[in-house]
Amino acid sequence: MSTTPATKGLEGVVAANSSICYIDGDEGILAYRGIDIHELADHSTFEEVCYLLWFGQLPKREELEHFRSRLSESRSINPAIVEMMQKFPRSATPMEVLRTTVSALSFFDPDERAVDHDSNLRKSYALTSQIAMIVAMYDRIRKGRKIVEADSSLSHAANFLLQLTGEKPSKTAEKALDIALILHADHELNASTFAARVTAATLSDMHSAITSAIGALKGPLHGGANEAVMRMLFAIDKAGENPVEHVKKMLADKKKISGFGHRVYTTEDPRATHLRKMSEDLGRSSGKGKWFEMSRSIEKYINAEKKLNANVDFYSASTYTTLGLDVDLFTPVFALSRVAGWAAHVIEQLDDNRLIRPRAEYIGPAYPNKYIPIERR
Amino acid sequence: MSTTPATKGLEGVVAANSSICYIDGDEGILAYRGIDIHELADHSTFEEVCYLLWFGQLPKREELEHFRSRLSESRSINPAIVEMMQKFPRSATPMEVLRTTVSALSFFDPDERAVDHDSNLRKSYALTSQIAMIVAMYDRIRKGRKIVEADSSLSHAANFLLQLTGEKPSKTAEKALDIALILHADHELNASTFAARVTAATLSDMHSAITSAIGALKGPLHGGANEAVMRMLFAIDKAGENPVEHVKKMLADKKKISGFGHRVYTTEDPRATHLRKMSEDLGRSSGKGKWFEMSRSIEKYINAEKKLNANVDFYSASTYTTLGLDVDLFTPVFALSRVAGWAAHVIEQLDDNRLIRPRAEYIGPAYPNKYIPIERR
Repeated sequence: MSTTPATKGLEGVVAANSSICYIDGDEGILAYRGIDIHELADHSTFEEVCYLLWFGQLPKREELEHFRSRLSESRSINPAIVEMMQKFPRSATPMEVLRTTVSALSFFDPDERAVDHDSNLRKSYALTSQIAMIVAMYDRIRKGRKIVEADSSLSHAANFLLQLTGEKPSKTAEKALDIALILHADHELNASTFAARVTAATLSDMHSAITSAIGALKGPLHGGANEAVMRMLFAIDKAGENPVEHVKKMLADKKKISGFGHRVYTTEDPRATHLRKMSEDLGRSSGKGKWFEMSRSIEKYINAEKKLNANVDFYSASTYTTLGLDVDLFTPVFALSRVAGWAAHVIEQLDDNRLIRPRAEYIGPAYPNKYIPIERR
Repeated sequence: MSTTPATKGLEGVVAANSSICYIDGDEGILAYRGIDIHELADHSTFEEVCYLLWFGQLPKREELEHFRSRLSESRSINPAIVEMMQKFPRSATPMEVLRTTVSALSFFDPDERAVDHDSNLRKSYALTSQIAMIVAMYDRIRKGRKIVEADSSLSHAANFLLQLTGEKPSKTAEKALDIALILHADHELNASTFAARVTAATLSDMHSAITSAIGALKGPLHGGANEAVMRMLFAIDKAGENPVEHVKKMLADKKKISGFGHRVYTTEDPRATHLRKMSEDLGRSSGKGKWFEMSRSIEKYINAEKKLNANVDFYSASTYTTLGLDVDLFTPVFALSRVAGWAAHVIEQLDDNRLIRPRAEYIGPAYPNKYIPIERR
């Protein structure tokens, strides 16, 4: 057996060749298919970014039109799934529901076992639309509200906000969510995407892969981090504390401050740059600037004191709260963006597949460890 | 960024230190906690092996008694889950149902987010019992049969067969399944276990991790392989063909023969040794020896012609068929054994956690790839 030494958490280990996402952690560069995230956030839309991730290049006008219609035509959930969600206990969290429901969607897929390129693409359209619908629907179900029909004339971001709130969103809200979706759409071999690829590589199927990804995203070290940031801001607000004093106390108590530092970036996470600005703009235009102000003062302190930079999660917290999203919808909203990247990675994995099966370094009782009969133990 | 070169499928790359499973692929050795699989198959039980995997050593008599009661006391499924399964379309495959239902079980866990050692152990007992129950229950539901109550006086293997068939199994059948469960209980960082660890390492939760594992196990390159072996045997039998001639034709048509070769073993898979004997013995005692005979002649031919050895999947196919299991229950039965290993690995991962987040080698369009406005594409 030829092995390389164990690297805990596979840090710095290259697990795949990929042409989807380029990251330079030292320069703070993130690019999809080589196009800088700043250009995409400034000029593109989530639909265009999906196309770019799945097809490898930006769409021409009619390709984009076709893509948009296919995505909006996929806004359909089997009534049996909706009934199933209605029976879930109201205590079920949105991420548990999303994981379970996406898994159940395979029952109604016309060919759930198919793992060829075209089938994977078909499932990518379906799941991208359906994940947004499930998040919106379940939020209404648990709040005892009526489910809102999809509107095929709307963008992905606007339709989600419509199905969530029951009202057509303002242009500002639609744009803010759309940019957030662009920023979160892919991030190379993050844990959820890697879980999706490991699952897909057994030639399982797209629903299995995306279900694994949702399970991984649910963790506080991954998608759950912006929720932790917001819970901290709420606690500070409720206690009427000074944000910096609160954070100082947390550090003294050796508590982790979520939203800072990143495995890959040594400099500022380029997504944080946009989200900071968005949080500030939304705060100003909505008159609810306090979450941004609190965040900014904490960021300045942690920058100076701990030399740690804000990551994607830090300002998405105040942004989403200012947009009116419940805290436990932050991770589901992350999923409704990241599914674009998960799908792109599953397609790439299965276009040139090899089972992902590493080795472990055995550090247990030496072999052979004799089997001792129970009467002599 | 410091990276090692990409190794496709992480072949030979060490992803973790682990004290659970020792494999020497060149010597054909498999051992749990250092104890050889042959000794365990000959002398142990599935319950004892679970204890060994979870606690690191063989139980004393009263520890084993306590373990057995805790496992059999965990034979309980919330009625809402059973109702949910009853509403699934009958076309849903047992693996889709298992993935979905295990995910839904978290709704009723008293603390689904908890990832401490004791909570993980508690969930391990629950899920080990519940996975077996779900497989048995859904098989009866889809066949329009009445659900059979669990019997807490029975072993894990016997209770599963009771809940599946409605009858207390013979000692021979119970023993055969018990040995199969021992042989499949763990196999180091196989793809499903690795998917479970990647998912758990975000500090998500046991249900998410096991759901990911089930999704990965579902693939034909992993748990699905013995199903493919059996479908080949059925096809040969139906056509009244000579097994060796059939396999020759498959090879001439460049078709893959499932059940041979293994990423890790260069010599015979030690589990195949036991399953071959079990397949032969069961065939003889049941008078249904033809599946073993066909398997044996194919094995001899592939050994001689392709220098490939039978793996764990090759003889589990004829073994399970002789035991009366439907072909699409083979992978679910694999799950009801491997959950022991998945649980052990999730516990080990979370006892000393680090996020599993490798890197990709970027091979896409060079950065910076200019964003071109749509009217100029």
